[in-house]
Amino acid sequence: MFSFDFSLPTEVYFGKGVTESKLAETIKRYGSKVLSCYGGGSIKKTGLYDNIMSILKENGVTVWELSGIAPNPRVSSVRKGIDICRKNGVEVLLAVGGGSVIDCAKMVGAGYYYEGDAWDLCSKKAVIKGSLPLVSVLTLAATGSETNPTAVISNDETSDKVGATSKFLFPKASFLDPTLTYSVSAFQTAAGSADIFSHVLETYFNKGEDMFMLDRVMEGIMKTVMHYAPVALKDPSNYEARANLMWASGWAINGFIQGSKVKAWSCHPIEHQLSAYYDMTHGLGLAIVTPRWLRYCLNASNAERYYSFGVNVFGIDPALDPFEVASRAIKALEEFFYSVLGLKSNFTDSGIGDEKISEMAEKAAKALSPNAFVPLKKEDIEQIYINCL
Amino acid sequence: MFSFDFSLPTEVYFGKGVTESKLAETIKRYGSKVLSCYGGGSIKKTGLYDNIMSILKENGVTVWELSGIAPNPRVSSVRKGIDICRKNGVEVLLAVGGGSVIDCAKMVGAGYYYEGDAWDLCSKKAVIKGSLPLVSVLTLAATGSETNPTAVISNDETSDKVGATSKFLFPKASFLDPTLTYSVSAFQTAAGSADIFSHVLETYFNKGEDMFMLDRVMEGIMKTVMHYAPVALKDPSNYEARANLMWASGWAINGFIQGSKVKAWSCHPIEHQLSAYYDMTHGLGLAIVTPRWLRYCLNASNAERYYSFGVNVFGIDPALDPFEVASRAIKALEEFFYSVLGLKSNFTDSGIGDEKISEMAEKAAKALSPNAFVPLKKEDIEQIYINCL
Repeated sequence: MFSFDFSLPTEVYFGKGVTESKLAETIKRYGSKVLSCYGGGSIKKTGLYDNIMSILKENGVTVWELSGIAPNPRVSSVRKGIDICRKNGVEVLLAVGGGSVIDCAKMVGAGYYYEGDAWDLCSKKAVIKGSLPLVSVLTLAATGSETNPTAVISNDETSDKVGATSKFLFPKASFLDPTLTYSVSAFQTAAGSADIFSHVLETYFNKGEDMFMLDRVMEGIMKTVMHYAPVALKDPSNYEARANLMWASGWAINGFIQGSKVKAWSCHPIEHQLSAYYDMTHGLGLAIVTPRWLRYCLNASNAERYYSFGVNVFGIDPALDPFEVASRAIKALEEFFYSVLGLKSNFTDSGIGDEKISEMAEKAAKALSPNAFVPLKKEDIEQIYINCL
Repeated sequence: MFSFDFSLPTEVYFGKGVTESKLAETIKRYGSKVLSCYGGGSIKKTGLYDNIMSILKENGVTVWELSGIAPNPRVSSVRKGIDICRKNGVEVLLAVGGGSVIDCAKMVGAGYYYEGDAWDLCSKKAVIKGSLPLVSVLTLAATGSETNPTAVISNDETSDKVGATSKFLFPKASFLDPTLTYSVSAFQTAAGSADIFSHVLETYFNKGEDMFMLDRVMEGIMKTVMHYAPVALKDPSNYEARANLMWASGWAINGFIQGSKVKAWSCHPIEHQLSAYYDMTHGLGLAIVTPRWLRYCLNASNAERYYSFGVNVFGIDPALDPFEVASRAIKALEEFFYSVLGLKSNFTDSGIGDEKISEMAEKAAKALSPNAFVPLKKEDIEQIYINCL
């Protein structure tokens, strides 16, 4: 029987210009000493950095900076951020960027209230018991971190990439201005779209009970990504496309569609090893892994789910045999990832060989829940990796 | 361009037995002096009242009562509740019932912090500036009040029925146990389902920009109601049906699908006069009014919306002319309301004549926004009422 908790306390301000109109007053509700977290400097090129800095200065906010947060953010950045906050009595965190920047800021906030090393919180060795308030300004539609309670952090020393979840990790407020994603490259738009799609697909193909209403919502979000990702690729400043992708990003992974499901994902732990070992872009890794995983897991007991996916998302003829629908659906998904989005279709083209497959499969097998859609052992995951070569 | 704010701070506990497992600890986060609000006593018949009272007493909670809250709740009940709270220093409100009970409790909470008469807050003469914390236990899937910031209150003296909205009106927590709706009568199940459907339809047929993703979500919720209302009518203890209807109730009107829309509804203000003048069950009134309103408003400039509705919700042949699709969709909706749900199809059968039509149309015209899907004058609404006879 469906049973779950849900709340979405993050205040979302969505639309063109919301940062200009509401960021300062929102931050000042929580304090006037801010740590501004961002990535490699693309926000300086677009002018967003200057824009935000002048808004903050005009409003009497003092700003420290944590810059250079990498995609697949490192725990070293988290530690650095915590130090700055402690030394300067930072009261509020501001994350300006995509999911990596927001995730890093989340763990800075949680680590601030933890005496030990921040990796303990990332790796669930210690429990998150509080956080500095976090406000995010999203510049990439992908991970959904802007409205969820999860952060994924990598550890260079151990080649680990792990996710932590806590109610304290919800941003207090997130600013979603679709125009801030106009400058996102074609590759990142494609990878982000694959990531959003994957969050829904991982939920759709999962154990736990199917809730009719949520199945229809999931199909709607997947259709939205398929509808608008090509539009955004062709016309990067198309507001409607960027807005739909941006809002889809959050709803793919804020807990709503996950209601009644056991939340034991498969492609993510399999992909996380690629990010950890090769620093592969997460969405690209998911696009390579997902169709192979779907094909590997298909069997008589679960073909019905593939059938719904094929018929309701890709419009495949419902009169066909479920296995035929499944096969066509997987092909249609490959067509979407590789031809429509233009993402690389295998490891070889992405510069990845078979040298780490055994090691990665071992780690993925440990990360994969026994409650997964189809429980997989190390050997199964090895085969899936091999099929990706 | 889509622009909106969104947050959903209400904590939802969904599933069989959630009241038993989490109600006491949730209430005690806010206080131990509780006003328990409920309706006509059906919760005493089902044993829910005794169950909750024993949970509260075991946990050292002191309880006062506001009982007899009517469907279309009266401001007189709100005033009574405020008095009890003030006299006894009540710290938390507990609403056990459907939308009427929750709405009444919301305005008790808001009125507690307002020195003037509570009707000022209902009628928007005064602004809501705070509220006592409210916890709800839902027993009827219909109005969505359990996860939204709105309350609709009636005034017997003036035959007014009005809605107030404020961020202070979100319940702090809502307990959604589908098994608590097993005992809901066929008529109330049907009327509640019509109400849920109408909240989505009013949003779907509304001005403001169409957001592809939200259109798909709305179609999914409408299909959910059509799929499960007949199941719940045939098999009142069907958990899956009751769960889907209960969760659909909230999502139809918690602000999510309303993003990018102007939120100027039409059927609700037209129906509210029926509730106010004849104490008609809200969902029944909506079921009678909605198809007539759809037929009256159809024109060349908006037929496209009816076309999407017909094709995506009712599966009508997309090759047909939009007007033909529209006509078939309205007929299919009538079939759903009157044949499948078994609701009365007109005023006459519901004991309503034409004597108040002019007066009601005048009030409805005032309540209807000029931004409505199709702006309507008093004469238009009179004609819609006449078509309902």
